[in-house]
Amino acid sequence: MSTVEIDIIYMMNLIGCGVFAISGAIMAYKQKMDGFGVLVLAAVTAIGGGTVRDLLLDAPVFWLTQPSYIYVVIFAAVLAIIWLNYSERIPAKALEIADAIGLALFVVMGTSKALSYGVSDVTAIILGMMTGCFGGMIRDVLANEVPMILQKELYAICCIVGASLYVLIIPFYEEVAIISAFSAVLLLRLAAIKWKWQLHVFKY
Amino acid sequence: MSTVEIDIIYMMNLIGCGVFAISGAIMAYKQKMDGFGVLVLAAVTAIGGGTVRDLLLDAPVFWLTQPSYIYVVIFAAVLAIIWLNYSERIPAKALEIADAIGLALFVVMGTSKALSYGVSDVTAIILGMMTGCFGGMIRDVLANEVPMILQKELYAICCIVGASLYVLIIPFYEEVAIISAFSAVLLLRLAAIKWKWQLHVFKY
Amino acid sequence: MSTVEIDIIYMMNLIGCGVFAISGAIMAYKQKMDGFGVLVLAAVTAIGGGTVRDLLLDAPVFWLTQPSYIYVVIFAAVLAIIWLNYSERIPAKALEIADAIGLALFVVMGTSKALSYGVSDVTAIILGMMTGCFGGMIRDVLANEVPMILQKELYAICCIVGASLYVLIIPFYEEVAIISAFSAVLLLRLAAIKWKWQLHVFKY
Repeated sequence: MSTVEIDIIYMMNLIGCGVFAISGAIMAYKQKMDGFGVLVLAAVTAIGGGTVRDLLLDAPVFWLTQPSYIYVVIFAAVLAIIWLNYSERIPAKALEIADAIGLALFVVMGTSKALSYGVSDVTAIILGMMTGCFGGMIRDVLANEVPMILQKELYAICCIVGASLYVLIIPFYEEVAIISAFSAVLLLRLAAIKWKWQLHVFKY
Repeated sequence: MSTVEIDIIYMMNLIGCGVFAISGAIMAYKQKMDGFGVLVLAAVTAIGGGTVRDLLLDAPVFWLTQPSYIYVVIFAAVLAIIWLNYSERIPAKALEIADAIGLALFVVMGTSKALSYGVSDVTAIILGMMTGCFGGMIRDVLANEVPMILQKELYAICCIVGASLYVLIIPFYEEVAIISAFSAVLLLRLAAIKWKWQLHVFKY
Repeated sequence: MSTVEIDIIYMMNLIGCGVFAISGAIMAYKQKMDGFGVLVLAAVTAIGGGTVRDLLLDAPVFWLTQPSYIYVVIFAAVLAIIWLNYSERIPAKALEIADAIGLALFVVMGTSKALSYGVSDVTAIILGMMTGCFGGMIRDVLANEVPMILQKELYAICCIVGASLYVLIIPFYEEVAIISAFSAVLLLRLAAIKWKWQLHVFKY
């Protein structure tokens, strides 16, 4: 990849982090947490998934060596605090779209990093999905709720489809793999939000 | 160990994984989770304990290099979904016995793996217990319940007794250590289920 | 540092572990857990924070190689069980002070260990805070409560202030860094308890 492309990906990664951090801060607001709770929930949502991936891969944990992720989390949390204090209205729609973009990016990054550590395709798909989903899962556990992604929404399946596409196409065309995986996660997720897709497997 | 013995242990390990995965899927059913929730709860129950053990030992996480564990989890989860949709009845007794067998096997495997990484006896016992118990603990945390093993049942103590036997006998007779540790966990656990043994330490 | 100083720090570290273990055992008592639940909650409170730090740093997990921490946890848990069975009264004030001492020590140790692994200052502050706070956070998650430190008390901020002082002063004077960081955490925490300081960032 050219330096320009790396810069674009790095920037988008930071943006994804920021959006996820805001979703964590909003959960902290709903749970009436204090300032530190906001920071922790923002941080685990934004960097929790990648941290679990790096621990499993025995890779250096990404934010230990790149503190810019921490600064983005702190900045996003402060922004969310200011916003929530001056406006009752949470811009739910805008956040959902931003979250879907962040998700799509995290899945592509996560799958790509896992493959670069030489794991099998199935494992790379799982770790790509974890990168996108596990931050939100830890956020919900800390907020003492059953994780949303386990119960209500078509979220993780979008990640699995995107990561699978990436793994299938990457041996042939790098750019196509990145773009199609990113688009698949993004479009599936937006469709799931719009048409309220769910994945019920039990008759209750 | 001969190749036949390794094959038997590997097969039993996969069976233990499958049984634990089913117990995770049933918990997901009780919590009205969706298809992805079933998969995640099945997976954390089956491979969560071993994953924590490997992270603590700084060993390569076992299912990253052996995807057969993942396939067993997916197969068991699908099986549980089909069963729970066609039959109201959960075969509780059969599952408890299968779970006890899986537990006994996980404890022996976990203690043995810990010792092979050169940790002290006490640490090996703790890691053997964790291999057996922590998957179910993470399952309960994700399902937003106080972990069953912390509250109601004689579960972890069976693991500690079995792991201690293993550590005591292994310097002298390998086969005796494996068989007696396995039997101790299995029989103690079955007895605890039958006579409802508990370990109350507080007068309430 | 001289051998005497190392011995003092090691002793104080064990004392901190014991106090944190007692706080875990009391939480288990409140949740009506069994004997194993007491042990697990005592252990995660005492060694959970340091374990997360070591996993993130890819350092050998401290209690795997030094089982004395495990013995202290078991001893403290047994002590708490005996106490709680013979006396209804929990010595809340004494425990809070002991907890503040343990916290101050864990923060200094954690920040110092993180720096010795060559991470940046910001990362060292975060890991120092985690060493002090994350054990209690995992304890609360296992007890199925929203972690106290995220919601009610000025706890983590004391750690962040102490860890920051340590990072700022350590390049110049080692003893001053240790003593001022330790004192900052301890005094801030005691003041927060006495005057019920909180860190509300939202108007509800």
